[in-house]
Amino acid sequence: MVESSSDEILADADKVDVAFLVVGDPFGATTHTDLLLRARSLSIPHATVPNASILTSIGCTGLQLYNFGQTVSMVFFTDSWRPSSFYDRLLENCSLGLHTLILLDIKVREPSLENLARGRMVYEPPRFMSVAQCAQQMLEVEEERGEGVCGRERLAVGVARVGSEGQKIVAGTLKQLAEADLGPPLHSLVLLGKRTHDLEREFLADFAVEREGFEGIWRKDYEGR
Amino acid sequence: MVESSSDEILADADKVDVAFLVVGDPFGATTHTDLLLRARSLSIPHATVPNASILTSIGCTGLQLYNFGQTVSMVFFTDSWRPSSFYDRLLENCSLGLHTLILLDIKVREPSLENLARGRMVYEPPRFMSVAQCAQQMLEVEEERGEGVCGRERLAVGVARVGSEGQKIVAGTLKQLAEADLGPPLHSLVLLGKRTHDLEREFLADFAVEREGFEGIWRKDYEGR
Repeated sequence: MVESSSDEILADADKVDVAFLVVGDPFGATTHTDLLLRARSLSIPHATVPNASILTSIGCTGLQLYNFGQTVSMVFFTDSWRPSSFYDRLLENCSLGLHTLILLDIKVREPSLENLARGRMVYEPPRFMSVAQCAQQMLEVEEERGEGVCGRERLAVGVARVGSEGQKIVAGTLKQLAEADLGPPLHSLVLLGKRTHDLEREFLADFAVEREGFEGIWRKDYEGR
Repeated sequence: MVESSSDEILADADKVDVAFLVVGDPFGATTHTDLLLRARSLSIPHATVPNASILTSIGCTGLQLYNFGQTVSMVFFTDSWRPSSFYDRLLENCSLGLHTLILLDIKVREPSLENLARGRMVYEPPRFMSVAQCAQQMLEVEEERGEGVCGRERLAVGVARVGSEGQKIVAGTLKQLAEADLGPPLHSLVLLGKRTHDLEREFLADFAVEREGFEGIWRKDYEGR
């Protein structure tokens, strides 16, 4: 709604109080910054309240927030649309040894292409990308690009429902995560960088799909860089 | 306290409920991860609650959270201790065109070196680094290193008391920020990267010390990279 109906949200906001609630931090999405700019151009007084966000609560993995580079997004691939710009961002973070938080696609209240073409506002059932789907898409793009950024033996951490009681954390290779089931949404994934701290290994190892293999790859590729 | 007295915090935590409150997100500090590891090694059940953090609420500047690289810290320089490793991190982020959030030093309940040497637990008055001090230290290190990372004409944004009613945002060159007074703590600073979005300029220009100069430098150095 906020993308298409900001006029509606801001209508009368100069006369009555209007609150706009979001999931996560209000500045996590460009759309919200845009909404504020519109309010400002209409001289509507406004204030925002900071909130918890996956961008910091991902610290529940034990990975140090200082060691993260830029955050990237992963969209659902279709037969004809497989955007791989995320790979360039991963490559940049990897070149500095930094972790990458990957935010996974959500499709809510979106019409199918077919229904859109016919002008029917019939929505698809909501879809939430899983850690397994994300890992699978990363492996496919690594196959195409081949720069060693997110191959089968790269370590990653999948998280689900962070901050809720059923929170789940799974660490492993991308190949393992492509086969992991973390249950209901929302999911996110972190690709590990090689500039690691021993505390990170210690914290993560408990969540490993297969602890010995995890620590073996860590010692070989991720230690003391 | 948490650094030195985690045993005390965890004493009896296997029998009674113990809550540990922090400012910001609980995983913003390595120390807290360490506390959890200790709890885990003692088989003490534990849970954490995500919270708002400057790492995301810095979005109030209009800078897109996707465009931030790794976060760095700035400590108070002394005559004999002027650590410049922050410069290497800034250089890395700059090389990718990313913004850098710089967290500023806080000295609370710390004895002076003199008192420490004499074994006297007399604390110094609390000190909080200001945006101006941070900008000044950056200029000094740029003078020494000379790689063009944080010179006088580089753009930056200072923030103070983010999330509170008296929140303040000031954008300008590092030279301007080195002379800016943002009032009481807490302060943080963002060094701008060159991979910018026009929405960022539009949002920030309103906070510029001197708007025309800000937009001039933006057009010359920060646009469409």
